Amino acid sequence: MRISALSERTGVPVATLKYYLREGLVPPGRPTAATQAAYDAGHVERVRLVRALTQTAGLALADVRRVLGVLDNPPADRLALLGAAQEAMLGAEATASGPGGEDPWPARVAAGLAELGWDCDPTLAARLAAQLRDAQRAGVAGLEDGWTAWARASRDVALADLASVPGDEEGAVRQVVVGTLLTDPVLATLRRIAQREVATDAAGVREADVTPEDASG
Amino acid sequence: MRISALSERTGVPVATLKYYLREGLVPPGRPTAATQAAYDAGHVERVRLVRALTQTAGLALADVRRVLGVLDNPPADRLALLGAAQEAMLGAEATASGPGGEDPWPARVAAGLAELGWDCDPTLAARLAAQLRDAQRAGVAGLEDGWTAWARASRDVALADLASVPGDEEGAVRQVVVGTLLTDPVLATLRRIAQREVATDAAGVREADVTPEDASG
Repeated sequence: MRISALSERTGVPVATLKYYLREGLVPPGRPTAATQAAYDAGHVERVRLVRALTQTAGLALADVRRVLGVLDNPPADRLALLGAAQEAMLGAEATASGPGGEDPWPARVAAGLAELGWDCDPTLAARLAAQLRDAQRAGVAGLEDGWTAWARASRDVALADLASVPGDEEGAVRQVVVGTLLTDPVLATLRRIAQREVATDAAGVREADVTPEDASG
Repeated sequence: MRISALSERTGVPVATLKYYLREGLVPPGRPTAATQAAYDAGHVERVRLVRALTQTAGLALADVRRVLGVLDNPPADRLALLGAAQEAMLGAEATASGPGGEDPWPARVAAGLAELGWDCDPTLAARLAAQLRDAQRAGVAGLEDGWTAWARASRDVALADLASVPGDEEGAVRQVVVGTLLTDPVLATLRRIAQREVATDAAGVREADVTPEDASG
């Protein structure tokens, strides 16, 4: 197909496609004339991926390039693959750093992870501690107890994540990197839906307990 | 304290503080001279909050203003409060919209939520369907089965969220809005840590099953 058809199929403007091609985010098409090229289904897929990484996942171009690099050259070992995939993701997520001072969170996180029996990558543990510290400094309450409850729920999320990883290497990398990045917003939405559900349940129970005589009026 | 001390306490540059003051994100200090004002602990807290909302949660100034608006004028009813808090958050999170065509996701999401017995706000359901559609179009596999597993895990997250909501209204709004926005990154990190934990567990089990004789060498 010509570039105009590629644009129609993906919903991405021709000018943006030309930019992706110039930047090497999408491989060149098969030349058909001096100024024309033909694109195939692989191009449609890659364009959709780049678009999703920049728009849905909100990655900068440099980070899109890292993610595509892992996708195009997947490591052979499954665990190394997960590590590389996570490294590519982590580049996209800078940790906010607050001013200095007493910070009990690295020790708290280490103790909590030990209690869970989790053997955690030091970079991820440091990131987690910094995020919890920043949230607490901004006035969020209940984090000391709350975060290990979240950790246990996250294990169920991760089990569902890994259940959907296909057997082939390229598919596996794609699923871990792209799947995780693109479904972080899905999980954020589900959290808000579940908050309302839990709050409505609680309100319903309270109402039934306290004012059963008001139900008929 | 003077603005220079406020800057030191919060780690936010004086120029940025002046910008927050000009934009009304932080209330003015108590005037002490023609060009000077005194700031207190409340200012420290508000500056940290604005900084966290823009940096950690990545909100635009217009959305920070919406969130602060809910914080400063909390609705009286607890459920209305949660709704207003979520509305303020949702403004910050635009849904990517792909090109048209067959979209099975609104029906799938409706059926899945009905099976869970969840009574979901239509805006949140539409957002969820769009996010799942976009992720699938970008090549993420296993979403049809995966998302309801995530929903069940999200209920545990929400239970932990609501357990930490304090009794007073201002505290409750702050906890729901700020707590959720600022701890979305915490949950994203925990997801990655848990993925590695689950994968390492699986690899350990496979190794023990397949090559017990290699363990000694």
